[in-house]
Amino acid sequence: MKTERLDKITKRFLEKGLEQMVVCDPCSVFYLTGKMINPGERMLALYINKESSKNRIFINELFTVNEDLGVKKVWFDDNSDPAMLLSEYTDKNKLLGIDKKFEARFLLRLMECGGASGYVNASECVDIVRQQKDTDEIKLMCEASRINDLAMGEIIKRISFGVAEEEIASQMIEIYKSFGAEGYSFEPLVGFGESAAIGHYEGGARTLTEGDCVLIDVGCVKDGYCSDMTRTFFFKSVSDEHRKVYEIVKKAQQAAIDMIKPGVRFCDIDKAARDIISQAGYGGRFTHRLGHFIGIECHEFGDVSAKNESIVKPNMIFSIEPGIYLEGDVGVRIEDLVLVTETKAEVLNNFTKELSIIG
Amino acid sequence: MKTERLDKITKRFLEKGLEQMVVCDPCSVFYLTGKMINPGERMLALYINKESSKNRIFINELFTVNEDLGVKKVWFDDNSDPAMLLSEYTDKNKLLGIDKKFEARFLLRLMECGGASGYVNASECVDIVRQQKDTDEIKLMCEASRINDLAMGEIIKRISFGVAEEEIASQMIEIYKSFGAEGYSFEPLVGFGESAAIGHYEGGARTLTEGDCVLIDVGCVKDGYCSDMTRTFFFKSVSDEHRKVYEIVKKAQQAAIDMIKPGVRFCDIDKAARDIISQAGYGGRFTHRLGHFIGIECHEFGDVSAKNESIVKPNMIFSIEPGIYLEGDVGVRIEDLVLVTETKAEVLNNFTKELSIIG
Repeated sequence: MKTERLDKITKRFLEKGLEQMVVCDPCSVFYLTGKMINPGERMLALYINKESSKNRIFINELFTVNEDLGVKKVWFDDNSDPAMLLSEYTDKNKLLGIDKKFEARFLLRLMECGGASGYVNASECVDIVRQQKDTDEIKLMCEASRINDLAMGEIIKRISFGVAEEEIASQMIEIYKSFGAEGYSFEPLVGFGESAAIGHYEGGARTLTEGDCVLIDVGCVKDGYCSDMTRTFFFKSVSDEHRKVYEIVKKAQQAAIDMIKPGVRFCDIDKAARDIISQAGYGGRFTHRLGHFIGIECHEFGDVSAKNESIVKPNMIFSIEPGIYLEGDVGVRIEDLVLVTETKAEVLNNFTKELSIIG
Repeated sequence: MKTERLDKITKRFLEKGLEQMVVCDPCSVFYLTGKMINPGERMLALYINKESSKNRIFINELFTVNEDLGVKKVWFDDNSDPAMLLSEYTDKNKLLGIDKKFEARFLLRLMECGGASGYVNASECVDIVRQQKDTDEIKLMCEASRINDLAMGEIIKRISFGVAEEEIASQMIEIYKSFGAEGYSFEPLVGFGESAAIGHYEGGARTLTEGDCVLIDVGCVKDGYCSDMTRTFFFKSVSDEHRKVYEIVKKAQQAAIDMIKPGVRFCDIDKAARDIISQAGYGGRFTHRLGHFIGIECHEFGDVSAKNESIVKPNMIFSIEPGIYLEGDVGVRIEDLVLVTETKAEVLNNFTKELSIIG
């Protein structure tokens, strides 16, 4: 167990009046043990008690885990009832913190077995700790973003007449692997022209016409940590309106980045970018939150949005990604990851944000 | 909504004494609506009531769903409390069936909001219906397995001295795409020699030596439906013991397939294969269940194992995949998908199971 991380989490759930909790998110288990176990439909549960001698990790014996994880292992197999097994280790007369991702199949069964006196979503105790990266994590996040910069430089060389969005998207994996990454942090989003205005669009058969925008939103995983960056280019030429839209998004992103420092509220950062877009007349066209936390997962707990009134703290890492989407015409988004220092935001991506004509 | 499928599911939950349930598994939502929505950390919930006019689907407006799904949509955004919203539509004084995959973050909140008088894991009502494929699904499953046969033929051409397991694994995606598949049904498992004895091993830098086994466990998704097949080859030559092990596994698999017909218990099918392996002296070396159901997901509800005493029914599709794993030496597994007809099992894979020396 990474004891510094565990201690921070235990402190948090004690403050919430809990003395025990179940962590099941494989990424949180990785965060605490250094071991990534993807259990699929099987139960994976790290049981944490304020008395650390009671800590246990429940693993299906299908998964090979030879290393010492610093916590006693309880093995089970496919013929077992793992939630009942877990209930034999919990303090039954006390509340139990539950991981937000714990599935109903295990939670309802644990309840049936009387595993605790009550159940509380306690994921924030883990998630809030995970928001502030430690030194090891910051190093890994910088490296993942460095690779993402290199990959963006490589992929835009391949954009030309006749190349389909999905071809660009599918080439990203080799590019990432050539730079030493394990894989994607999410499926690449590549949109040309009006496709770029569609939310979560992964790329289809569309090819390029002069003047199209080229939106590329991509990220990789390196040593278990994620990167995520978006750039929007223009193919061969750019219209005056598209240039205007681009510069508004760029200005909105910079305004948000410029105001980040410990103590500022996330909703105010969101507002700073949103106001610029609204004042320019595109208010309804920025259809999503400004950013999300990232680390072991591409989307981690917390976001930069109107509803998040919590404040920025040192060593947090999150994305800043305003966009303007004009249906049937164009989509522009610019996204960087930022690391909060004691005084400001340090941008982890170094790929240019100047309007670039490519192809 | 696919009304025949919905009617079967409703009938099942009524039999369990439920009048309403929440389906959230994206694959079950796809099964019922024909639309695959991957909500990530957002809530996706299809609420089904015995009075079908009360049916609703809850979707975050981030996801573009323009088509008519045959059920009224309730949209929400990232500033909403979706589980509370759901609780405004449920019958509060009645039990509520819950999808096994519904996450604690939504379930505990739904409970807080008093969404129902009690909560029951009701996934079996959906999952058992999904086990028996309808005509459309059988056609799609056959096609996915046909592509898997072709892909296996293609990948073994690339096996030679100096090629690493992970190179073979990473080439599968292009091969599948060249045959028209969307992608993997799971990450390819490629193990050479002693690597093949490790459970869930995805392939590393190991290259081949004469006499090594080559275990390839791969599957693709085509039009939303999965394939899954394992073959074990030998590189350049095969030792007498490895040949013996191979023939035992092959015999065990055939014995299992031969006894499949409606009415037979899954545990007895598992036992048929396991007995052959045990009688040959390798009992402890067949370390997993004999098979799993498959369809929209690679691993669906139900398995062929010692603990499954339920019986085979027509139109079920599942895998039969015995193996023998000798640590530090060799791993042999042979896997096919089978479709249950009125009288027997029809094997969906046509790739040879004769012991093959390759390279």
